[in-house]
Amino acid sequence: MAQFEQWAGFTGRNWKSSVDVRDFIQNNYTPYDGDESFLEGPTEGTEKLWGKLQELQKEERAKGGVLDMETEIVSGLTAYGPGYISEELKDLEKIVGLQTDKPLKRAFMPYGGIKMAEQACTTYGYQPSEKLHEIFTKYHKTHNQGVFDIYTPEMKKARHNKIITGLPDTYGRGRIVGDYRRVALYGIDFLIEKKHYDFERYARHGMKGTDFRLREEVADQIRALQDMKVMASVYGFDISQPAKDAREAAQWLYFGYLAAIKTQNGAAMSVGRVSTFLDIYIERDLKNGTITEAEAQELIDHMVMKFRMVKFARIPSYNELFSGDPVWATLEVAGLGQDGRSMVTKNDFRFLHTLENMGPSPEPNLTVLYSERLPENFRKYAAHISVTTSSIQYENDDVMRPVWGDDYSICCCVSATQTGKEIQFFGARANLAKCLLYAINGGVDEKTKQQVGPAYKPITSEYLDYDEVMEKYDDMMEWLSKLYVDTLNMIHYMHDKYYYEAAEMALIDTNVRRTFATGIAGFSHVVDSLSAIKYTKVKVIRDEDGLAVGFEPEGDFPRYGNDDDRADDIAIWILKTFMHKLSKCHTYRDSEPTTSILTITSNVVYGKATGTLPDGRKAGEPLSPGANPSYGAEKNGLLASLNSVAKLPYELALDGISNTQTISPDALGHNDEERTNNLVTVMDGYFKKGAHHLNVNVFGTEKLIDAMEHPEKPEYANFTIRVSGYAVKFIDLTREQQMDVISRTCHGTM
Amino acid sequence: MAQFEQWAGFTGRNWKSSVDVRDFIQNNYTPYDGDESFLEGPTEGTEKLWGKLQELQKEERAKGGVLDMETEIVSGLTAYGPGYISEELKDLEKIVGLQTDKPLKRAFMPYGGIKMAEQACTTYGYQPSEKLHEIFTKYHKTHNQGVFDIYTPEMKKARHNKIITGLPDTYGRGRIVGDYRRVALYGIDFLIEKKHYDFERYARHGMKGTDFRLREEVADQIRALQDMKVMASVYGFDISQPAKDAREAAQWLYFGYLAAIKTQNGAAMSVGRVSTFLDIYIERDLKNGTITEAEAQELIDHMVMKFRMVKFARIPSYNELFSGDPVWATLEVAGLGQDGRSMVTKNDFRFLHTLENMGPSPEPNLTVLYSERLPENFRKYAAHISVTTSSIQYENDDVMRPVWGDDYSICCCVSATQTGKEIQFFGARANLAKCLLYAINGGVDEKTKQQVGPAYKPITSEYLDYDEVMEKYDDMMEWLSKLYVDTLNMIHYMHDKYYYEAAEMALIDTNVRRTFATGIAGFSHVVDSLSAIKYTKVKVIRDEDGLAVGFEPEGDFPRYGNDDDRADDIAIWILKTFMHKLSKCHTYRDSEPTTSILTITSNVVYGKATGTLPDGRKAGEPLSPGANPSYGAEKNGLLASLNSVAKLPYELALDGISNTQTISPDALGHNDEERTNNLVTVMDGYFKKGAHHLNVNVFGTEKLIDAMEHPEKPEYANFTIRVSGYAVKFIDLTREQQMDVISRTCHGTM
Repeated sequence: MAQFEQWAGFTGRNWKSSVDVRDFIQNNYTPYDGDESFLEGPTEGTEKLWGKLQELQKEERAKGGVLDMETEIVSGLTAYGPGYISEELKDLEKIVGLQTDKPLKRAFMPYGGIKMAEQACTTYGYQPSEKLHEIFTKYHKTHNQGVFDIYTPEMKKARHNKIITGLPDTYGRGRIVGDYRRVALYGIDFLIEKKHYDFERYARHGMKGTDFRLREEVADQIRALQDMKVMASVYGFDISQPAKDAREAAQWLYFGYLAAIKTQNGAAMSVGRVSTFLDIYIERDLKNGTITEAEAQELIDHMVMKFRMVKFARIPSYNELFSGDPVWATLEVAGLGQDGRSMVTKNDFRFLHTLENMGPSPEPNLTVLYSERLPENFRKYAAHISVTTSSIQYENDDVMRPVWGDDYSICCCVSATQTGKEIQFFGARANLAKCLLYAINGGVDEKTKQQVGPAYKPITSEYLDYDEVMEKYDDMMEWLSKLYVDTLNMIHYMHDKYYYEAAEMALIDTNVRRTFATGIAGFSHVVDSLSAIKYTKVKVIRDEDGLAVGFEPEGDFPRYGNDDDRADDIAIWILKTFMHKLSKCHTYRDSEPTTSILTITSNVVYGKATGTLPDGRKAGEPLSPGANPSYGAEKNGLLASLNSVAKLPYELALDGISNTQTISPDALGHNDEERTNNLVTVMDGYFKKGAHHLNVNVFGTEKLIDAMEHPEKPEYANFTIRVSGYAVKFIDLTREQQMDVISRTCHGTM
Repeated sequence: MAQFEQWAGFTGRNWKSSVDVRDFIQNNYTPYDGDESFLEGPTEGTEKLWGKLQELQKEERAKGGVLDMETEIVSGLTAYGPGYISEELKDLEKIVGLQTDKPLKRAFMPYGGIKMAEQACTTYGYQPSEKLHEIFTKYHKTHNQGVFDIYTPEMKKARHNKIITGLPDTYGRGRIVGDYRRVALYGIDFLIEKKHYDFERYARHGMKGTDFRLREEVADQIRALQDMKVMASVYGFDISQPAKDAREAAQWLYFGYLAAIKTQNGAAMSVGRVSTFLDIYIERDLKNGTITEAEAQELIDHMVMKFRMVKFARIPSYNELFSGDPVWATLEVAGLGQDGRSMVTKNDFRFLHTLENMGPSPEPNLTVLYSERLPENFRKYAAHISVTTSSIQYENDDVMRPVWGDDYSICCCVSATQTGKEIQFFGARANLAKCLLYAINGGVDEKTKQQVGPAYKPITSEYLDYDEVMEKYDDMMEWLSKLYVDTLNMIHYMHDKYYYEAAEMALIDTNVRRTFATGIAGFSHVVDSLSAIKYTKVKVIRDEDGLAVGFEPEGDFPRYGNDDDRADDIAIWILKTFMHKLSKCHTYRDSEPTTSILTITSNVVYGKATGTLPDGRKAGEPLSPGANPSYGAEKNGLLASLNSVAKLPYELALDGISNTQTISPDALGHNDEERTNNLVTVMDGYFKKGAHHLNVNVFGTEKLIDAMEHPEKPEYANFTIRVSGYAVKFIDLTREQQMDVISRTCHGTM
């Protein structure tokens, strides 16, 4: 059992002999059921720094979205000397460390794909380095090249026709949350020692290729840990030993996260479940009288400021998919322990309070792990923050805890993984709406007219027959699921080979659990289309080639989002069927297949590539995002809509079921207090039904229209809204995206 | 079925529809049973070029063994513009193409290991490039780094203590012979088309990691084929189409080989079985009157000149192991077809004749695939060349043909692989003599006193008991064989990952057969030691730590090399036992384990690291090379010695059984004709007994001593001798190596 003087005052045993942060937390945290009155406002230092950062952000927006870019240096743990928000203010920074040498300067990250890295440069007027071009074309193959070397023509075609979309084959796959707390609790040397132990342990008898791969990965992890020490030393810190106080703990932890974002550019680079952990250090310091509440809040504010600064160099097609420059620096608060105690601490208040001290912000992607058993004071405070900032999301701890335990992190928008014990192989999504059209058109793409799917017999009748459609849809989903998994298997094989996440994996158990996260796009439209075919007559309009390009439902039909089982049962059937088909496929490294109903802002791009559907949605119109009912389909108010989504069984979509709702302030109450109380009631009810996730926006359509027309108004500078799975500054969206958000249902009644 | 105008006059069908060079040869070659009287001397062009090359070689020797070295450019197919033996004489070169831009300039090849590549530079006074250092340490991992990342401490210790030796973990593994004839027969475009077909064919249902690896390999092969066209175009040739005549055929084929030696630096980079193939083109041209015999010989002379120029940058420890700068550009002549016809053509004479036209030379490593059924004229001519040049070796076609067919190539010294259908995973050797000492000393190394093997109970008795020794030896061999295979598995996994032979594999069937070639060192000493223990009393001398460091046999005992079954049966037992243990291990990519008794010149280095043995060999003395009997053990003359070696069953050592013999000219006959006839008789008898290999040297010890003392004498400039598995210029050996050669048995009687 290890013993460090930095651990003085901490109790428990297991976490001292092996790496077990959860055990440390459970033994040492102090639940808090009081209210927010203890919170402190921003310090002068915070205001100065935040002021400076806002200037930089303004400058960044003025320059078209990118302030500065690296072209000569490949991002890495030891690539840069120290960097600060401002040289003059650097003594004010309680948490230090930038991705590059300058604030908001985007790093050059070619390992995922040199073409994308270079295109990101040229898009913003920067000239990529010839030397690096040579290195990453001639000497070192990239993930992207590896994948395209082995794709089949069928995969390329499916990708090109966007029936499989958003594949992480040109940049980092992301969705791996290192247990950054380990750096603080144990220090790097202890972690290296444990990795050496694993290295020895995995010298298995009769080792084969997969063992060699693992051993090499561990060797790379150990190198990354050593480099993390170098990275920290540049800022004057020695992180070889455990952190001795709250400030060091926050700093050490941030260095762990910084290591991740210096080496990987995944779409989602989440922070994880750090709030309760850090509270333990703050509580100890408060008890020892070595920190004040104002200082504690300052620490959290500064840490959050750093999370607000995370940026990656992206290309236009990426930005179309994930609008508003998100990084999914997802960070969780609240939740319950397996022992039934609330895990809400003062620190959970502090993290939410950053949205008041420094105004609303999309990042970090603050996530409340919700249960009606959380202290009422906390639920009310969170709801209050939602009502006033629309910047946070809620996920149902009561459905996730039985699956993932009480120390899971959200690794992207909404997907849970056990912290430090599990990773995801991220797989974007299959467009099941388009798949329905393929079923009708015999595998021919309705947009490009290419034969993409198998050339099954198309449907040729004037009116769609439900049984015939279902049989053909089942066949086409079978093809799609297999092709989809095969494609993802290649991607993850090549990612491991050319862009392995050594720094993140160094902070995760060697014997890691892996899920294989697929996803569904176009969900509500398939449900409503099948419902239309089943419950009314749908006439097919065909073009000169005989392709079904239009549909005319002749009467009304039940729609998903109205608490109507006739539609909602179809929703469950689709999810169950697709998941079943996925689980019939071999998945890379024997990972466990899961799926999500979650589309981020990509619903707009996906919609553009998808033809007219039998539910009446016209070709090119955005799909409904995530698991949301279709725009205009919800006729029975917010609660009925929530009830429909809540029926989807979480165990069939363990990667998450995203639901984004906008409620008019007037519908929610006459004042903030009433709105807060009502929102708590709504969420208690929604989550009690087993629903997984809720993005809460509280504003009216008029505000959105005004912000779109007058983005220059100061009140809109940080105006943040929740979209599918993340938050975004509304004025950072393209006009097309803004129009989509505006057209979404804003519930004027409960 | 393809049809090219370049194929006019060729018969057969199968080779036109799929890549099948053997079928082409069998359908088109012209056996020749005449004598050498048709041969032509060197042309004026040949003499000028060879004169120039000899000047360069002299300059090279004067500069300490390396004439020039690249430091700034990484070797690759398209790294250089054209290069010639001499700018002034370049129009005389009938076959063009150098590894770099200048003759004998050694390329920079870092993929196997940057440290070794750099050390090779600094050894000869060259400064390695900082830029390339950065690339191959920071961005691209090398094979060597990959291997050392995953070695276990036990492997490192076994390697350091030299019980496992000569592992290809710092440079290319070699021993892969591309079917370079394919370039000539089919042209590159046809080969690319076939590889695309394979790529599609290997899109297997339910593809997994091993399928992805294969697909990526094929993609890399296709890229290499495309680059070969670029490489050839630099010299003004378009190799996309088949060769249209003999000169193009030789040139195209050489370009294929050049692609290999530009991209890989394996110890053995063999040429393969090209003689009969090229004869077909020459015969066609002779028939068409478009070539004369003098021109045909010139073509072969110039091609051979190019093979004599192949060089790699090596480090001192490598040179100690493989003395004299060998590259094993092994090239075969003769052999029989499966249909019983001799495959000897005029071209086989031409290749041997190069040793007359341009004098003796170690490279290409000319190998006669021998059978007493070869035409007598040819057998005599080959023997004549041996008697006069000591530059060629013989291998038994009658034992190899049943195993490998009639189109195998020798991929190193003596090891056969089916041309274009098979590769070797080369694995150097285990020191079984040292293993015997480990058995006696309980796994403790007799030199370093480290516990290397498992800490079994050592033998503590004053006299060795045969049964006890055998039981312990069996246990220790079990440990060694497993560790040895585990180590090689890692090496080949990493070689495939970081230093894949795309250019060579592009000229080999995608569905390739793989053998896993292990090897034995110290063979004769184990045999004699066990014989001593069994047939007389052996007293053990122990040092202060109780380690057995000396042995005193108290009487005489049968020794291997005297046609005495008592010793020879022990030899067979060792081979059978070790091979059996190897075959119990999992081998990388399900390759087929084989073994060899073959040590090259490494017997000297291995001997240095090996303590005194029970057979009387003193600590540090060279081991006997390959399967040779121990120095001084042979008491019954040449034939008895050959009989002992011939008893080793080839099927237990499919990787080869190397035997090197030196016969005094006087013992062989009174004049060259008598010597030639006697040598034919000796070889007929030897190979009829099922022996595998023979290196033939015909000279006396006095000549060696004189050459060692007076290397400056012109007659010794090209004085070539056969050592274990290859030939070497005697004056290029270190004095230590020369002493070893001198101390070997020179048979003064038959």
